[in-house]
Amino acid sequence: MATGTSPARDRATLLFANETFYRAFAERDPALMDAVWAEQEPITCLHPGWPPVEGRDSVLQSWHAILTGPASPDIECLHARAGIHRDTGIVICYERIGQDYLLATNIFIRSGDGWLLVHHQSGAAPEPGEGNEPPRRSIN
Amino acid sequence: MATGTSPARDRATLLFANETFYRAFAERDPALMDAVWAEQEPITCLHPGWPPVEGRDSVLQSWHAILTGPASPDIECLHARAGIHRDTGIVICYERIGQDYLLATNIFIRSGDGWLLVHHQSGAAPEPGEGNEPPRRSIN
Repeated sequence: MATGTSPARDRATLLFANETFYRAFAERDPALMDAVWAEQEPITCLHPGWPPVEGRDSVLQSWHAILTGPASPDIECLHARAGIHRDTGIVICYERIGQDYLLATNIFIRSGDGWLLVHHQSGAAPEPGEGNEPPRRSIN
Repeated sequence: MATGTSPARDRATLLFANETFYRAFAERDPALMDAVWAEQEPITCLHPGWPPVEGRDSVLQSWHAILTGPASPDIECLHARAGIHRDTGIVICYERIGQDYLLATNIFIRSGDGWLLVHHQSGAAPEPGEGNEPPRRSIN
């Protein structure tokens, strides 16, 4: 853990980084999307139903295509939980896209006081519901 | 990076840990599956179509149910690629289950000379094929 951080602050900044990723998505902001992803580390992305996308240029191109495409979906992030393993943050959250739900894994690495995204996967999930809803506590 | 390791050795041990996870799955070996997952870190699992599973007891129970169930699927891991970010290893691979393909994210943390699994997600994927097949090079 970096000097001067606390577990609570770490989780808060990690969840903020995750929210920023979804804000870039929801607001169709390619520049913000670029800023969310790490520049100095290999990055990868598994969009649902796509083959793997890897490398910063390809990953950002894939997001630009999604953000600017005619079918660019409205998206909302729900029930985000943050887990921290040394310098790596893992956020698991639901994504609501229209009436559909996905579950996502977002992996961040620590960068100064914040976090940068190195990997995203999302895939089909059941609707969160009774007996199905993730616990509200953090996973860490 | 731990003293005495090299990037090539790191990737080899990471891919070995990933293979061990799939060996536990393919050989229906609950004890090996238990050994693959970290004990001292929070662990989570996103099985395709399931709500999130979190905590060691719940994650291992979910795997024991899969491994001992009457519909326990045959599985093969294909095209595994290893990316290392400091003390965290990310492996992306295809899973072939019968005629179906999934893509998986497996996140490991460094433990001594090896790696322990802290998170798994898999979801539906297209069949690897021309223009679709992941590059053979490592992602790191």
